[in-house]
Amino acid sequence: MRDILDAVAAGDLSPEAAEARLRGYATTEAGRFDAARETRRGVPEAILAEGKTPTETADLAATSVETTRRAVVTRVDSETAQAVEAGLPDPVDIDYDERARTLVAHAPDFDAPALDATVAVVTAGTSDAPVAGEASVVAREMGATVEWLEDVGVAHLGRILDVLDPIRAADVVVVAAGREGALPTVVAGLVDTPVVGLPVSTGYGFGGDGEAALAGMLQSCTVLSVVNVDAGFVAGAQAGLVARAVDAARSGEGSN
Amino acid sequence: MRDILDAVAAGDLSPEAAEARLRGYATTEAGRFDAARETRRGVPEAILAEGKTPTETADLAATSVETTRRAVVTRVDSETAQAVEAGLPDPVDIDYDERARTLVAHAPDFDAPALDATVAVVTAGTSDAPVAGEASVVAREMGATVEWLEDVGVAHLGRILDVLDPIRAADVVVVAAGREGALPTVVAGLVDTPVVGLPVSTGYGFGGDGEAALAGMLQSCTVLSVVNVDAGFVAGAQAGLVARAVDAARSGEGSN
Amino acid sequence: MRDILDAVAAGDLSPEAAEARLRGYATTEAGRFDAARETRRGVPEAILAEGKTPTETADLAATSVETTRRAVVTRVDSETAQAVEAGLPDPVDIDYDERARTLVAHAPDFDAPALDATVAVVTAGTSDAPVAGEASVVAREMGATVEWLEDVGVAHLGRILDVLDPIRAADVVVVAAGREGALPTVVAGLVDTPVVGLPVSTGYGFGGDGEAALAGMLQSCTVLSVVNVDAGFVAGAQAGLVARAVDAARSGEGSN
Amino acid sequence: MRDILDAVAAGDLSPEAAEARLRGYATTEAGRFDAARETRRGVPEAILAEGKTPTETADLAATSVETTRRAVVTRVDSETAQAVEAGLPDPVDIDYDERARTLVAHAPDFDAPALDATVAVVTAGTSDAPVAGEASVVAREMGATVEWLEDVGVAHLGRILDVLDPIRAADVVVVAAGREGALPTVVAGLVDTPVVGLPVSTGYGFGGDGEAALAGMLQSCTVLSVVNVDAGFVAGAQAGLVARAVDAARSGEGSN
Amino acid sequence: MRDILDAVAAGDLSPEAAEARLRGYATTEAGRFDAARETRRGVPEAILAEGKTPTETADLAATSVETTRRAVVTRVDSETAQAVEAGLPDPVDIDYDERARTLVAHAPDFDAPALDATVAVVTAGTSDAPVAGEASVVAREMGATVEWLEDVGVAHLGRILDVLDPIRAADVVVVAAGREGALPTVVAGLVDTPVVGLPVSTGYGFGGDGEAALAGMLQSCTVLSVVNVDAGFVAGAQAGLVARAVDAARSGEGSN
Amino acid sequence: MRDILDAVAAGDLSPEAAEARLRGYATTEAGRFDAARETRRGVPEAILAEGKTPTETADLAATSVETTRRAVVTRVDSETAQAVEAGLPDPVDIDYDERARTLVAHAPDFDAPALDATVAVVTAGTSDAPVAGEASVVAREMGATVEWLEDVGVAHLGRILDVLDPIRAADVVVVAAGREGALPTVVAGLVDTPVVGLPVSTGYGFGGDGEAALAGMLQSCTVLSVVNVDAGFVAGAQAGLVARAVDAARSGEGSN
Amino acid sequence: MRDILDAVAAGDLSPEAAEARLRGYATTEAGRFDAARETRRGVPEAILAEGKTPTETADLAATSVETTRRAVVTRVDSETAQAVEAGLPDPVDIDYDERARTLVAHAPDFDAPALDATVAVVTAGTSDAPVAGEASVVAREMGATVEWLEDVGVAHLGRILDVLDPIRAADVVVVAAGREGALPTVVAGLVDTPVVGLPVSTGYGFGGDGEAALAGMLQSCTVLSVVNVDAGFVAGAQAGLVARAVDAARSGEGSN
Amino acid sequence: MRDILDAVAAGDLSPEAAEARLRGYATTEAGRFDAARETRRGVPEAILAEGKTPTETADLAATSVETTRRAVVTRVDSETAQAVEAGLPDPVDIDYDERARTLVAHAPDFDAPALDATVAVVTAGTSDAPVAGEASVVAREMGATVEWLEDVGVAHLGRILDVLDPIRAADVVVVAAGREGALPTVVAGLVDTPVVGLPVSTGYGFGGDGEAALAGMLQSCTVLSVVNVDAGFVAGAQAGLVARAVDAARSGEGSN
Repeated sequence: MRDILDAVAAGDLSPEAAEARLRGYATTEAGRFDAARETRRGVPEAILAEGKTPTETADLAATSVETTRRAVVTRVDSETAQAVEAGLPDPVDIDYDERARTLVAHAPDFDAPALDATVAVVTAGTSDAPVAGEASVVAREMGATVEWLEDVGVAHLGRILDVLDPIRAADVVVVAAGREGALPTVVAGLVDTPVVGLPVSTGYGFGGDGEAALAGMLQSCTVLSVVNVDAGFVAGAQAGLVARAVDAARSGEGSN
Repeated sequence: MRDILDAVAAGDLSPEAAEARLRGYATTEAGRFDAARETRRGVPEAILAEGKTPTETADLAATSVETTRRAVVTRVDSETAQAVEAGLPDPVDIDYDERARTLVAHAPDFDAPALDATVAVVTAGTSDAPVAGEASVVAREMGATVEWLEDVGVAHLGRILDVLDPIRAADVVVVAAGREGALPTVVAGLVDTPVVGLPVSTGYGFGGDGEAALAGMLQSCTVLSVVNVDAGFVAGAQAGLVARAVDAARSGEGSN
Repeated sequence: MRDILDAVAAGDLSPEAAEARLRGYATTEAGRFDAARETRRGVPEAILAEGKTPTETADLAATSVETTRRAVVTRVDSETAQAVEAGLPDPVDIDYDERARTLVAHAPDFDAPALDATVAVVTAGTSDAPVAGEASVVAREMGATVEWLEDVGVAHLGRILDVLDPIRAADVVVVAAGREGALPTVVAGLVDTPVVGLPVSTGYGFGGDGEAALAGMLQSCTVLSVVNVDAGFVAGAQAGLVARAVDAARSGEGSN
Repeated sequence: MRDILDAVAAGDLSPEAAEARLRGYATTEAGRFDAARETRRGVPEAILAEGKTPTETADLAATSVETTRRAVVTRVDSETAQAVEAGLPDPVDIDYDERARTLVAHAPDFDAPALDATVAVVTAGTSDAPVAGEASVVAREMGATVEWLEDVGVAHLGRILDVLDPIRAADVVVVAAGREGALPTVVAGLVDTPVVGLPVSTGYGFGGDGEAALAGMLQSCTVLSVVNVDAGFVAGAQAGLVARAVDAARSGEGSN
Repeated sequence: MRDILDAVAAGDLSPEAAEARLRGYATTEAGRFDAARETRRGVPEAILAEGKTPTETADLAATSVETTRRAVVTRVDSETAQAVEAGLPDPVDIDYDERARTLVAHAPDFDAPALDATVAVVTAGTSDAPVAGEASVVAREMGATVEWLEDVGVAHLGRILDVLDPIRAADVVVVAAGREGALPTVVAGLVDTPVVGLPVSTGYGFGGDGEAALAGMLQSCTVLSVVNVDAGFVAGAQAGLVARAVDAARSGEGSN
Repeated sequence: MRDILDAVAAGDLSPEAAEARLRGYATTEAGRFDAARETRRGVPEAILAEGKTPTETADLAATSVETTRRAVVTRVDSETAQAVEAGLPDPVDIDYDERARTLVAHAPDFDAPALDATVAVVTAGTSDAPVAGEASVVAREMGATVEWLEDVGVAHLGRILDVLDPIRAADVVVVAAGREGALPTVVAGLVDTPVVGLPVSTGYGFGGDGEAALAGMLQSCTVLSVVNVDAGFVAGAQAGLVARAVDAARSGEGSN
Repeated sequence: MRDILDAVAAGDLSPEAAEARLRGYATTEAGRFDAARETRRGVPEAILAEGKTPTETADLAATSVETTRRAVVTRVDSETAQAVEAGLPDPVDIDYDERARTLVAHAPDFDAPALDATVAVVTAGTSDAPVAGEASVVAREMGATVEWLEDVGVAHLGRILDVLDPIRAADVVVVAAGREGALPTVVAGLVDTPVVGLPVSTGYGFGGDGEAALAGMLQSCTVLSVVNVDAGFVAGAQAGLVARAVDAARSGEGSN
Repeated sequence: MRDILDAVAAGDLSPEAAEARLRGYATTEAGRFDAARETRRGVPEAILAEGKTPTETADLAATSVETTRRAVVTRVDSETAQAVEAGLPDPVDIDYDERARTLVAHAPDFDAPALDATVAVVTAGTSDAPVAGEASVVAREMGATVEWLEDVGVAHLGRILDVLDPIRAADVVVVAAGREGALPTVVAGLVDTPVVGLPVSTGYGFGGDGEAALAGMLQSCTVLSVVNVDAGFVAGAQAGLVARAVDAARSGEGSN
């Protein structure tokens, strides 16, 4: 930090640049486009509809499209989806996924990121699909190719073996599972790519609401990292960050 | 109950017989052999060495051999094992299993039960062996044939498939697993015999001490019943009771 | 596993048979009837109505009847029951149990399994009946004779003694209890057949929602295995698997 | 309170008496014997040896004998017991109960309270004896007759019925139980006297350390009040307070 | 138990009497009045309206009045209260307490028990009144005189001192408190009668729903016994059992 | 932040000063005395001896005296205290409090802070003294006058009233209590100064290890803030920060 | 206490004055104004609307205005706000904050307290605003100047540095944060005034409902005190008490 | 799977190859070198010394070196380290890290993996170093360059900014933190590479033993994935797997 301040004092560094390096973003008017570019490289700001009125969500979505040419809204019910669609400017391209409860809007001039990297999203059962869908949407919006592999229950090993090839072909894997949450462990025992466990709040009685799944993934006898129960957005974004690192390497960026 | 009392009043039933039917055991001198026979059919009384002095355990073991011609002692360390051996009468046949921490003693005239039924005892890893060993000993002492299948971790599916045949051949299966406790679920998805899940207190951090394994087994998406963490004795005895029911059926006892 | 693959390579085993042995089920067209036969021997697929719309449940039930000649639906409210009934083909035999919240449908040509074995289902109080009823239905659908013994509270020992004979006559016993969950312990102290404890989510305050009952059954000083809170289906299916093992033994299948 | 202060202002009540009524004890020299008399009517001050050095415990015990002619020490190991005995004046009558880990000392002129009332102390198993013994000692020191009924496990109903008469004859019952803690519920279903449940920290795995027993007693479907896990002193003292109320009524004190 | 059976065999005891002694109640027609008399001495059967339809509750209340000349219904909302009142026979005396949510009905010929003993019911704040009211009703129905002392918060010591005299005059005290549950400890430090702590499910955040109050009462540095959170019925009944013991002693019943 | 950077760029602010304002401490050689002055105004760096070897602790204490002219060491056993004393330079003034397990060392030229403000430290019982002592030491080292008020149990209200005057005279109050932790609530109901609740890890069974005390203080029906269980240092430092604010106000510093 | 009683006996102190000193408030008619003055110096009585009917809340608010010239109502929805406004006398000044869900009413002759002290209220995100708003209202009603600093998330350090100056200028700081609750720790590391952490019940999955935030603040490696989850009133009042102490010192009241 | 079996039947695939594809490892003699090559690409087998005798650990380490030319041992105390060193063949290169408690041994012919990728390992405080050290060792053994950044506490933002450049330069970051575990959140807010949170079991009282840190990381308002408390090996291995994916991309392997 001292270097930066010395450089500013010496006139070698502008205050704006110093601020940007220390803060990670610049607040000057001119800095706005820089911020946008930076944002495009990383995780998109998502609007959590849950706990907001349809109007509030629609307002935030409109602001998001205006400033970043895109809106990503999660936990959207159909009433909110209609309000958001009504509130957006006309030529916007809207994709509302009812099962994943996500709504994505792209302005015509939105410059969608594209990564040369694949994220596999695997679900143990039907009830894991909404949470896994959220993960899938954010990974796709970050530019990754998403491989969706549904209903790979741990109770029948055959179902797992059937999809082993596409799982192994991915650069990073998100595995969503509720109840006892054993699937990420079984998958991670069969692949050598990073696996992110995504516990889902199914189940009942002792360990219900996803706690058994979370505990099982944290205790896994294989190598796994984990996100919180139902944190589809976080799992997808973490996989997207791995995909970005792989893409950057493929593009020849950085090296030691 | 009224029938029994009426029968006693009418002189059709002796008080001893009434007592035995109502209590499940008779306290008269003459009833002692009856009690022994009954006991031989069921779960042997085990002596828990943990929390007792070596001398106390040795005294209880000697009493057990004297009255039932057998002693089954659990959670035995080597010092206690020596004390027990020293305290037992000479021609007794002693089997001390250091890993399972069990000691079994049979008097020469002990009439060991023999069931025409098999209990498979499966472990996920090396650290599950002591608890699973306790289950194995009690099932064997109840007369079942025990099939011991060790180190069948869930991280390598191949290991499970290798032992599928002997698991399927058993009449009832005990599966011991710590950490995330996924093995019983995987096994129960592959067989059509009853599976008893036995969570083991390995693991650490959140869900350590066997709670993640217990919760995972209770949440299993297959059909399982479960015993408490480290309850090797209970798992083995429950499997033994199923083996006894199967043996009785094979012997032509009872029917609907 | 290597044996199987070697046999396939040598032409001694068809790929279909190898797949069936490794997977537990065959996916070929021809294999469909085999799969049905296998299924009939085991636990029926149940449709959990909770968390589904009446239409979704009705669709799944119709598919189940079409492919397996039977549907077993659990957690059914009256609206859903009507939707299911409306969606099934005409000559189907429907049994909707309002208290147990189960609906069972048999096509006229359904070949119902029949086991020479009895499952006793015992409840501690009136509020345990719905969960115990679920256990009862699945055991019956697996072919067992079900002995229903209601309202055997632990607070009056007389009530327990009154039903001791039919409990002892069963091959396996499911005991459902809420609050402190003491009844399975008391019953298991009086019988020598396997007892499956089924905790029910009654109770309030500390240990409410079935946790006290679950903990009490796991800590039982007798021999018990346990299922999760309100897991009526699992308890009934586990008892059904024991009944199947007993039936197979009575029929002369297998032996050591 | 205003009445008391008005009376003091009017000279109708001495400050000492006012203080005693408001505080429950007087701090003047003259008040010391009054305090002693009051104390004798209620719960004796006990010295908890656990967490103190033998010397500290011995000093406190000596002070207790000096000021109240009695010392009641709990959680005493043998080393501390020797230190206490060595530190007490010569003609003191000492009763050290190794199992209950209590030490009671009476000076020759100690005027022991005597109540015309009985406390039954019932244990489920051997491991409940130390905690129940603590309850027994404090009830006896409060003057109650203690009926000690050991090893009345819930797994064999016959054992309970054998001791039903002395339990019913008592004025209040303390029932100590670990593991699933079902005994107080069974006993309370058979008597019409107040029952105090005393959970004991036996057990292991889920609900171990007495939590299952505590939860089970709080959820009991009969009428019970409960104390904390291993709180033998509190259970005995609460039973002693009931015994004192009964004794006072028998002696003709008070009425409505 | 053997004595009873021997006596039956010898003709010294009728089967009915034996049954009544072993069971605590007789099932013969003739035994009905005996049972009623016994019941009148103890805790009345209460009907928990919560979780039942108004019709079901009304039916149970009508049956209760028919067989015992009284009905005690708890957790009653106004709709249920109207249904119960409509379903009872005409000359019945009905007392519906809206705050305590209890409804008590006495037939004209109901022989209300009367005990020469007082139960003080103390509340910390307004929100404790419904639960404490339930305790009050059951104690009164058992025949005790109830002293109701409301809103004695621990934050202003003056309020406690103001009601100390009536608290000390009672034979047993129920103290209801939510939030931190400190009032029972403060009260028990000021009286020498038995105190039953009744935790109430007020509070929020960590320790909300009555758990902090329950834990605080179990940890109390004075002598207290406790019931489960919101268990007003149990607290009142336990206090009623103490009141009955005191009444019996005052009436000259029993002695050692 | 932008202002600071602009000022540096303009030469109006030296990089050192900018760094100190942004970081809270300066790392330049010259800045060392500044840092010391700043530190003297705030919370002293304490060395936690627990988990360190006596040698490590002694080394850190010597460094602390060298750089700040003072060392504050917490959780010190006697062996460590000797090591620290041996390792410090000769003319240092050492105060080792065996009960509070704290060691404070002042170099002869240490310029001790002095605040015109008082912190009252109140304990419920003897076992709270070590934790409260830690609070007391840190408050005193921050310059506050500490009023130590010991053994003010909630079971005897008289004891509280006896010390009410000095509590009310303080500017801020720390109240340490274990078990049910009711004392801070009672005290806060009697004063109008800020009270910091300090839960202590005494107690046993449910809510033991200070959790009941913590929950009770968080649920308090009066106004309290709380620190973690046994966090004597934090409670004392927070009280010291309030004392510093009061002192600054008394000295005429700042105003709105 | 003895001093006071002696003084009353000697006629040196009136009973009213003695009562007021012992109780903290006087119940005589004449004492009413004194009480009001005392109250004005401290924390205002707030009416919690949650769990009350709009009518009940309106009645209490009217009483509060009548007796103290002010009403402070918390957790107010719009229906209740209308009822309260309708029930208050005409010239009352009403401030209903929809986001904070607070309603404050001042009678024209209300003598609002004014403190020469500032409370900063800082929020981590939008969802913390309602709870922080409650804290803000109570601090303002106690007379403090409130500095409101919104949306200072921990994920972008720049936002924190932007508001560091007004935070440092305050006499005491309340920091509200949900999710992981890290903001109070970061703020407390940057200021030397007392910080009160206010955990908010946002978040989901493991540690949701504010428990992770509470735990994080209790474990903070800086100096913080904490209130319960969502306890905005308590946090604001505790900050207000510090502000009052600072104000008193600025006004020249008290000193050591 | 069917494809593989068909290929085997057709003679197009050898049984060995089929097995390797289905199992992930081959058990044939010839396959041994293949297995080694495979292993070198992934996570090395580590030997957990905790819970094993020094002799057992030494034997396992010798076997590991013999079969894979390397041994990685974790949780090693100095006695075990000596035993392992004594038991290894002579020319082995041994690196025992006393603080991280790891021992790594390389045979002279061990072909160490080398990845063109960097893992930053960041610790919040000194007590996080052992757990973070374990992560560091496994990442290094997988071939990654490790950047070690120690003692970056969240309480002083300056320390974080000082190391921001090397953190941003890494391909993946492991952040170890105990107590409130806020550091990973702060770091993840400043970088756009994947961050793995590693909670450490420091802390005490509520949320101690790492639970507050774990919950805080799971609730993080930034994007993070997490491993279990003290799971240094898992965090390092997960980071190593990301590093391998990046390295593979840099080497031109794979692409979509």
